[in-house]
Amino acid sequence: MKTVTILGATGSVGSSTLDLIERDPDGFEILALTANCDTEKLAAAAIRTRAKRAVVADEACLGDLRDRLAGSGIEAAGGASALMETAAMGADWTMGAIVGCAGLEPVMAAVEQGGVVVLANKEPLVSAGDVILDAAKHSGATLLPADSEHNAIFQCFDASRPGNVRRIILTCSGGPFRDWSSERMRDVTPEQAVAHPNWSMGAKISVDSATCMNKGLELIEAARLFPVPHDAIEIVIHPQSVIHSLVDYIDGSVLAQLGPPDMRTPIAHCLAWPDRMATPMEPLDLIAIGRLEFAAPDEMRFPALRLARQALDAGGARPAILNAANEIAVAAFLAKSIGFLEIAAIVEHTLDRYDPPAPKKLDEVLAVDAGARAIASERVKEYAS
Amino acid sequence: MKTVTILGATGSVGSSTLDLIERDPDGFEILALTANCDTEKLAAAAIRTRAKRAVVADEACLGDLRDRLAGSGIEAAGGASALMETAAMGADWTMGAIVGCAGLEPVMAAVEQGGVVVLANKEPLVSAGDVILDAAKHSGATLLPADSEHNAIFQCFDASRPGNVRRIILTCSGGPFRDWSSERMRDVTPEQAVAHPNWSMGAKISVDSATCMNKGLELIEAARLFPVPHDAIEIVIHPQSVIHSLVDYIDGSVLAQLGPPDMRTPIAHCLAWPDRMATPMEPLDLIAIGRLEFAAPDEMRFPALRLARQALDAGGARPAILNAANEIAVAAFLAKSIGFLEIAAIVEHTLDRYDPPAPKKLDEVLAVDAGARAIASERVKEYAS
Repeated sequence: MKTVTILGATGSVGSSTLDLIERDPDGFEILALTANCDTEKLAAAAIRTRAKRAVVADEACLGDLRDRLAGSGIEAAGGASALMETAAMGADWTMGAIVGCAGLEPVMAAVEQGGVVVLANKEPLVSAGDVILDAAKHSGATLLPADSEHNAIFQCFDASRPGNVRRIILTCSGGPFRDWSSERMRDVTPEQAVAHPNWSMGAKISVDSATCMNKGLELIEAARLFPVPHDAIEIVIHPQSVIHSLVDYIDGSVLAQLGPPDMRTPIAHCLAWPDRMATPMEPLDLIAIGRLEFAAPDEMRFPALRLARQALDAGGARPAILNAANEIAVAAFLAKSIGFLEIAAIVEHTLDRYDPPAPKKLDEVLAVDAGARAIASERVKEYAS
Repeated sequence: MKTVTILGATGSVGSSTLDLIERDPDGFEILALTANCDTEKLAAAAIRTRAKRAVVADEACLGDLRDRLAGSGIEAAGGASALMETAAMGADWTMGAIVGCAGLEPVMAAVEQGGVVVLANKEPLVSAGDVILDAAKHSGATLLPADSEHNAIFQCFDASRPGNVRRIILTCSGGPFRDWSSERMRDVTPEQAVAHPNWSMGAKISVDSATCMNKGLELIEAARLFPVPHDAIEIVIHPQSVIHSLVDYIDGSVLAQLGPPDMRTPIAHCLAWPDRMATPMEPLDLIAIGRLEFAAPDEMRFPALRLARQALDAGGARPAILNAANEIAVAAFLAKSIGFLEIAAIVEHTLDRYDPPAPKKLDEVLAVDAGARAIASERVKEYAS
C-alpha cells in the first residue's frame, strides 16, 4: 500500500488522480489532500477517501474547512506553512498538481523528502528545472511526468542505457490554427483559441496549444527529464494526438506510446509505476481512428517554438522568463487586451529586455518570475493603450 | 564479447547478421557459420570474420569448402551430423536462419544448449512450437524473434508483468491485393503476387504476404511467444508497414515499435539485446512518410487469416499442417500449377483431411509435416489436371 499526498486535489489532474485511487482503495492510503480554497470539494474528497489530513493554502478558508470536516476525524489545516509541512510529510507518492508558481515550493518540499513526486504542471521543470533536479538528485526522489507527452517518452526511454537513444520525437497537435497563415491568425479570438481539437483542457493551456508555446515549454521539460542533447529533441506535428511521443534508438527502432486523449492513462501510469493499474477508458481503436498524420512544425508561423528552443539552449533564467511572460500575455489575450500574435511578441520582448543571472535557489526563481511578469505586464499596457 | 553461431549464414537474414557483426568486430567472436552448399559465400564470410568453423549441410559440397578454406586455419565440416554438432557447440548467441523444416533440428540442438537463440523462420514456433518451447524452458534458453512484428512486440511487451497486457496488435500490410475483390484475385499471377509494396522479400514470403497467410503464421508465432489469450491477439491492416506491431496495456497505454522496413533493425536488436547496437540505416522520418493508415482485416477475402486462427485455437498438429500445406500450395502457385485462390483452398482441404495426434517430439513434427505435404501435393495434382 502506497501512502499518497495530492497537492492540488480539487483541480482536473487532482480529481482524475482521486478517481483512479478510489477504484483501487486497497492500493493507496491518503496522507493528505490540499486545495487552494475549494473547501466543499476538498472536504468531500477527504471524507470519501478517508484522508488523514486536508489542507487549504488560503488560511481564510480554514474555518469553513473545519466546519465541513467536523466529526470526521480528519485533521484540517490551512495557510502556506501548513501546506509546506504537509508536502514534506514524506508520502511514498506525491502528486504535484498546484497550478502555476504557487506549486513550486510545495513540490520542492516533497522532492526534498525523496519518494516518487509526480509533476503535473510546467513550472517545476521549466522555471525551476536545475533547482528541482538538484534537489531530486540529493534526496533520491524519483520525478515522474504526468503530462501525456513526457509520460509517453518516459514509458519508451530506457533510462538504464541513455546512450542508446538517438532522438526524442515530441508530437504536437499543431492546435486549431495549424494550417492558418500568420495573417489569418491576427484576428483569432479567445473563443476560437480555447476550442482545442483533441483534448479538453483549461483556457490557459488551450491558448498555449494554439500558439504552440505549450510544445515549446514541453521541449524544455523534455530536455530536463531525459539525458539527451537539446538538438536530439525534435517536434513533429501530429494532428490526431494519438501517438503521444516517440523515442528513436541507435538501431533504428522507434518506440512510441499511443493512447486515448485522457489524462487518466498517464496519471495511472505514474500511480502504479513500475507496475500498471487498470483504467476505465475504452481501448484505443486504431481501425476507428483510421489515419495518423505527421508534418513539420513551422517556427515562422509559430514563433513560440523558436523562442522556447532559444531559451532552452541559453539556459539560466531564460526558461523561467519565457514561462512567466507567456502567462501574462495569455491572460491579457484571454482578457481581450492584446491580439493572438502579440502573445509571442510580448514573450520575445520580455526575453530581450530582461537578463538576470541564473537562479540557484527557489526564491531566486520566484524573483525572476516576478521580474518577467512586471516587464510583460508593462508591455501589455503599451499594446492595450 | 559474445560467441556467435549463424545457422544459415548465406541467406538474406544470415548476410544481414554478418553485416552487423562486421561493423562491431570487437563485440562478437564467430564460432561457426553454416550454409547448405553455397561454399563461395560461406568460405568468404568465414575468412572475413575469422570464424573457427564453416559447415555445409550438404556433405557433397565439403570438398569444395575445404579447397576454399585451405590454409585459412578454419575448420571445414559437412553433413547433417556435423551441422547438428555445430549447432550444439553452445554459442552464447545462435541465429537460426535455415529455411524451412531443415532448420528445425539444428535450432532444437541450439535451444537444448541454452543461451540466446534467435528465430528467423516460422517453422520452429508454428510447426514445432510446443516442442521448442518445452526445450527452451528446460535448458533456460532465451528465444528472441527476429522478424519485425514479433521483435516489435518483444520490445514493447513487459515480460516481467504479462498480466498488465490487455492486447497484442499485430500489424499487417495487407499485401498487394489489400483492396481487391476475391473475384479479381482469381487471376492474380505469381509476378503480381511477389511484388510486395514495402519489403524486399523472397518469393515464398511475398506470396504469403499477398494471401495474408504470412500474418496467420505470425499470429500463431505471437501466441507461442507471448503469454496472452489467443483472442487477445488482434490483426490490424496497416499498409505503410511503419508500425511493426503494438502492445495494449490495462491502463490504456499502447506501446509500439516503428522503424524502416529493413531486417537489420530487428536483427541488431537481437544481436545486442538487452543492450542495443548502431545500425547504418537512415533514421525513421515520420514527416516524409506523412501518413499511417489502419483498417480492419477481411477474413472473407483472405481466408488464410481464418484458417490460421482456427489452427491456433485447435492446437496440436494443426499449425504444422497449415504451414506444410501452405508451402506446397505456394510452390504450386509459383509454378503456375494452381491459381491464387487455390492456395487457401488447398490448405483448408489438407486441414480437413488430416488429423494426426499432437506431435510430442521433433521427429513427430517432421512426420506431420511430411503427411500434410503429401495430401496437399495430391490436391495440387487434382487442380492441375
